[in-house]
Amino acid sequence: MSIVVVGSIAFDSVSTPFGEREYALGGAANYFSVASSFFTDVKLVGVVGEDFPEDHLSYLTMKGVDTRGVKRHFGKTFHWKGHYGFDLNEAQTLKTELNVFSDFSPQLPDDYRKARTVFLANIDPTLQLKVLDQIQNPNIVALDTMNFWIEGKNAELKKAISRIDILFINESEIRQLAKEHNVVKAAKAMQALGPKTIVIKRGEYGALLFSGENIFFAPAFPLENLFDPTGAGDTFAGGFLGWLDKNGEMNFDTLKEAMALGTVMASFVIEKFSFDRMRDLNLLEIKKRYEKLQNLSMSPNKALEFKN
Amino acid sequence: MSIVVVGSIAFDSVSTPFGEREYALGGAANYFSVASSFFTDVKLVGVVGEDFPEDHLSYLTMKGVDTRGVKRHFGKTFHWKGHYGFDLNEAQTLKTELNVFSDFSPQLPDDYRKARTVFLANIDPTLQLKVLDQIQNPNIVALDTMNFWIEGKNAELKKAISRIDILFINESEIRQLAKEHNVVKAAKAMQALGPKTIVIKRGEYGALLFSGENIFFAPAFPLENLFDPTGAGDTFAGGFLGWLDKNGEMNFDTLKEAMALGTVMASFVIEKFSFDRMRDLNLLEIKKRYEKLQNLSMSPNKALEFKN
Repeated sequence: MSIVVVGSIAFDSVSTPFGEREYALGGAANYFSVASSFFTDVKLVGVVGEDFPEDHLSYLTMKGVDTRGVKRHFGKTFHWKGHYGFDLNEAQTLKTELNVFSDFSPQLPDDYRKARTVFLANIDPTLQLKVLDQIQNPNIVALDTMNFWIEGKNAELKKAISRIDILFINESEIRQLAKEHNVVKAAKAMQALGPKTIVIKRGEYGALLFSGENIFFAPAFPLENLFDPTGAGDTFAGGFLGWLDKNGEMNFDTLKEAMALGTVMASFVIEKFSFDRMRDLNLLEIKKRYEKLQNLSMSPNKALEFKN
Repeated sequence: MSIVVVGSIAFDSVSTPFGEREYALGGAANYFSVASSFFTDVKLVGVVGEDFPEDHLSYLTMKGVDTRGVKRHFGKTFHWKGHYGFDLNEAQTLKTELNVFSDFSPQLPDDYRKARTVFLANIDPTLQLKVLDQIQNPNIVALDTMNFWIEGKNAELKKAISRIDILFINESEIRQLAKEHNVVKAAKAMQALGPKTIVIKRGEYGALLFSGENIFFAPAFPLENLFDPTGAGDTFAGGFLGWLDKNGEMNFDTLKEAMALGTVMASFVIEKFSFDRMRDLNLLEIKKRYEKLQNLSMSPNKALEFKN
C-alpha cells in the first residue's frame, strides 16, 4: 500500500501569542507526509527552490517518505507568513510568496502512478485534476481546498470534487462552497457532487464525518498547552488517510478509526512550532493518546432504563 | 428522589430567520423542569404575574412537576425578547422586562427542603445562595450563570460556586469568569473554587465535562432543521440532572450517561419554538436518539495494530 500526496512544500514564518519562528519547515504536503508516514508508505510530489536545505529532505527520507517526486527549481521556495491571535483559531495571512510554486506543474514518476491512495492537498484545482489524470487506478482519492479556490476557481474545484472519494474541508469553507449554513445539509450537497465521504474540520471543536448515510464525530483532544495550529488540518488528513491506506479498505469502522487517528496526530503537531513535536513522536505515544481519546467520548453503555 | 429547581418562569418573544413567536412559554426553570420530568420528580420554585395563564401551570402539573413553589404576584410575568441570526448561535437580547421577578425572594415549601438534587438556574447569585440555605442536606447541587452576574456580582457568584457540586457554564462565560482562554485550564480554575464537576456548554459543538481528573465530551446531535435554540442549555441541564437524580449516584459512568441524555433532550427542544416539540415528546423517541448519539461518537474499537 502507498499514498501519493501532492501539495505545497514551504517555509513558514509564524507568530502566535506564545512565540514566533521564521522560515521553519512547513507546507501542506510535508505535514501530511510526516503524519501518514507513521502508518504507511508515502510518495511526495512537490517543488522546492534552491534555498531549500537538504536537511529538510533528509528528514522526510528518514521518515520513509519517497521524495523522488520533489523537484528542485531555480528560485526561492514557497514562503507563507501568518499570525495567530489568542484563540489560535484562524490564521491571519501576512504574506504569501509563491516563488517556485507559481509555475508548478506536477509530473509523477512512473511508479507513483500505481498508488492506491491519493491526497490532493490544498492547491489549484486545475493541478489537482492534472495529478488525478496521471494516476492509473486509485482506490481512494481525497482532496482538501480553501476559500481562495472556492471563490476563484469554483467550476474547476467542483469538477475535481466530482472525481474524489473523500472531501476534507473546514466548516466555514463547506458553508461557503455549498451556500448553506446547516452543516448536515451542506455535507449532503457535497455528497451530491460525487464524494461519498465528507470530513468537516472544526478546529478545536473536532471533526465531523459524513459517509453515505452514516455520521460520526471525533472531538478535538483537549490540551492545556497548544502552541501553533499550523499544519493541523493536513496532519489530521495524514493520520486519517495513512490509516485507511494501511488497512486497505474503507468502511465505516476503518473510517471511525481514521477520524480518531487524524485527531490524535493533529493534537501532537500543535503542541510545538513547525515539526518540532513530530520529530520526537513515536508510535507508543500515538497509541496511548488514541486510547485516551476513546475514553473521552461515548463509551459502550448498557441500554438505559427509564422511569416508566 | 426529587429535584428542586429555582429560576425564571417567563414569556419569551423570539424571532429567528425561520419565524417568530410572541409571549410564548419560556424561562430557564420551565425548560429545566419539563426536561427532567421525563426522568424524575421535579419541584419548581419561581414567581409569575397575574397574566400567566393557568394552562401553562397545568401543562407543568401534567408533566408531574410540583408547582406549589410557584408564587403568583401582582403585576406582569418576566418577559424576554430576543433575536437569533442565521447561525442560531448567540441570542441578541432586545428587551428584558423583569416585572414580578424584580423582587423575587424564593421561599421553599417545607417538603422541598429535603430535596436530594438542586438546580440553581441562572438568577442573581444572592438568590441562589438564599435557596441553598433552605435545603437541608442536598446530595447534588448544580448552578448555571451568565455574563451579567460574572460582571455585576462576581464575589457572590464565586461564593455560590464554592458551595456546589456541578457548574454548568457556556464556553465564552467560563473564559470570562476564569480569565483564561484555554478551556482545560479554565475548568481547572473553576474546580479550584469548589465544584468537582464542570460542564462547558458549546452550543452546536456539544458539551465538555470535567469531573475530577476525568474528561468527557458529547457532540451535539447533528440536525438538519433547527428552529429556535432558546432553552437548549436549561433543557440540557434538565436531562443531565434528571438522569443523575433518578440514578441516585454520581460517578463517571452516570455522568457520561447524563451528558448524553442532556444532549438528546436539548436536541429536541431546538427543533421547534418554545415547548412545542417537548409537548409531543415521548420516552421511546428519547431512547432512540440516545442510541443514535452513542453510535455517532467513539465506539469500542479493538486495540489498533500499527505499522511496526
